[in-house]
Amino acid sequence: MSYARKTIDQLTGYVPGEQPQVAGLIKLNTNENPYPPAPAVATALHAALDDRLRLYPDPTASALRQQLGVQFGFAAGQIVIGNGCDDLLNLCVRAFCDTGDKLAYFWPSYSLYPVLANIQGAQPVELPLDDNFQITAHPDLLTQLAGVKLLFITQPNAPSGVWLAKVELQRVIEEMDGVVVIDEAYVDFAGDHCLDFARDYDNVLVARTFSKSYSLAGLRIGWTVGAPALIAALAKVKDSYNVNRLSQLAAAAALADQQYFAETTRKVKATRQRVLGRLEEWKFRVFPSQTNFVFAQPPAPLTARQWFVALRERKVLVRWWDTDRIRDGVRVTIGTDAEMNEFLAATKEICEKANR
Amino acid sequence: MSYARKTIDQLTGYVPGEQPQVAGLIKLNTNENPYPPAPAVATALHAALDDRLRLYPDPTASALRQQLGVQFGFAAGQIVIGNGCDDLLNLCVRAFCDTGDKLAYFWPSYSLYPVLANIQGAQPVELPLDDNFQITAHPDLLTQLAGVKLLFITQPNAPSGVWLAKVELQRVIEEMDGVVVIDEAYVDFAGDHCLDFARDYDNVLVARTFSKSYSLAGLRIGWTVGAPALIAALAKVKDSYNVNRLSQLAAAAALADQQYFAETTRKVKATRQRVLGRLEEWKFRVFPSQTNFVFAQPPAPLTARQWFVALRERKVLVRWWDTDRIRDGVRVTIGTDAEMNEFLAATKEICEKANR
Repeated sequence: MSYARKTIDQLTGYVPGEQPQVAGLIKLNTNENPYPPAPAVATALHAALDDRLRLYPDPTASALRQQLGVQFGFAAGQIVIGNGCDDLLNLCVRAFCDTGDKLAYFWPSYSLYPVLANIQGAQPVELPLDDNFQITAHPDLLTQLAGVKLLFITQPNAPSGVWLAKVELQRVIEEMDGVVVIDEAYVDFAGDHCLDFARDYDNVLVARTFSKSYSLAGLRIGWTVGAPALIAALAKVKDSYNVNRLSQLAAAAALADQQYFAETTRKVKATRQRVLGRLEEWKFRVFPSQTNFVFAQPPAPLTARQWFVALRERKVLVRWWDTDRIRDGVRVTIGTDAEMNEFLAATKEICEKANR
Repeated sequence: MSYARKTIDQLTGYVPGEQPQVAGLIKLNTNENPYPPAPAVATALHAALDDRLRLYPDPTASALRQQLGVQFGFAAGQIVIGNGCDDLLNLCVRAFCDTGDKLAYFWPSYSLYPVLANIQGAQPVELPLDDNFQITAHPDLLTQLAGVKLLFITQPNAPSGVWLAKVELQRVIEEMDGVVVIDEAYVDFAGDHCLDFARDYDNVLVARTFSKSYSLAGLRIGWTVGAPALIAALAKVKDSYNVNRLSQLAAAAALADQQYFAETTRKVKATRQRVLGRLEEWKFRVFPSQTNFVFAQPPAPLTARQWFVALRERKVLVRWWDTDRIRDGVRVTIGTDAEMNEFLAATKEICEKANR
């Protein structure tokens, strides 16, 4: 006999990418930024390691919300801070989606969405992306949106890395009776964003994170922005002290150094373009990434799984899922130029061996 | 029209104690430890403020679980780490309590419990403590436990601070068909604990925090221990990266310095006894606190509300709730000896003025 809810007993939990403790491993599997956070982050944290650790943090992270509001042109009351972006996605499910309600997401995308739906006892609705991992707002899709209470859109998409056309997103938003969450975890590596939708529609939230572009995955800070009524619902559901003192300070310091941010982001994008070019040259099918990773399908006879395994043998860790629609590709986080040179050299060797 | 679930629209969120930014205020309102964390905490954190902040934390906090397991005699697989103890209480609700299921708690106790029940759409069941804030496992109580899926017990109780007789707790546990969570947030200031119940019963979890006795409220670390099957259910529901890198390290460092822990805990307890003695002398009704706070009812004509307001005017912040059963008392966190001298002097003055 189990004490757990039936839905939990039946659940397969979300499986995060490995965080291995292997020396010398080139870690390109969980989309971390290869560059350290802005120097101001450590400065701010060193100065905060005192008596104040004994005190609860600001429950609403007011200073950080204020700073984000000024930076992006929103009122602080339109923003909630989360213990990472995943915390916020979970809060959205809890605020907007009852047991049995439809929770939709495009597929393939972030594999956490169906897990969150199942934990809540909501009904997951998978909306297929086309073969280029794009949305086309055809009548069938719009029909599927009927009665959906919550829709997650990863923009740019993951694991493909592609930018979803905003005109299609807008059609989807206007069709929806429920809430649309645009998960912009990777948006700082793209050429555009969807904050205007959060400003213009009362049913849109945009969610962002400090984990990728601000190099703070270790400290868990995300934020979401949208209409005050949506934000108020999230604030009711969130844990009072969900974001600790140091993470609030780290995010503020990272955000304040926009020059450092621009420079590291530029480097990641330049490296990404170089990697994409090389893989294309070698006959991999690549997708036009607007993120800090690339999704690539190797040329026959090499399979994605073989490539993944052979990279691992060469101490290069990337991500491969044994899952429909994405089984034939591998997701590679963009590391430093030196790391990507090793990745490319290993890949070249693996290709040559496969063709021998 | 609201996009939120009906239960969220109707919900009054949990109201945490104030975190005011007023200079010179003596803050005795949220049960923080007046002493800083062990010096080893800052040392460990200073050493960790480097490149690694860009990397995700260990999702299961293995090192900390291992260390807690050794310290308290459990396997690491019997422990889950939370982003504060509140995170874990919430996970318990999500793992063990479906929509409409009964979630019970003794009352008065931690006012977060009914909020968590309501967010989940569970049915809150309030079990009254007696006039001394004690459990008596009379037949009526045992009848009320029928069909309860999850029961929260604060041990020692809050806001009264009293220790609940273990023999009564044991009767309750043996009567329960569902899960019992013993919330031991304040247990390090008591003379006993209930870890044996977590060891002996397959339906008991004990939850603890680093916020109070380890002076780490600012960093959000809690843990819960119990049967592997219960722990596995919580692990499925928890956010993968719920506890950041620095908090994991801080908790480990604090736990390792048991001498510092014993010394600060001893000081808080000694101050508590002195404060209780003085209030009793002044004809306050006090309860035998086993926590780092005291609950006291002032002698007529002074009311609890008047006492609370007059303390605030004198820059001493304590906690008062306009709530049945506890409206006639004030909860006072134990500060340093100097802080409590100011609290006592202010209280004496307020009493004298009331009697004039």
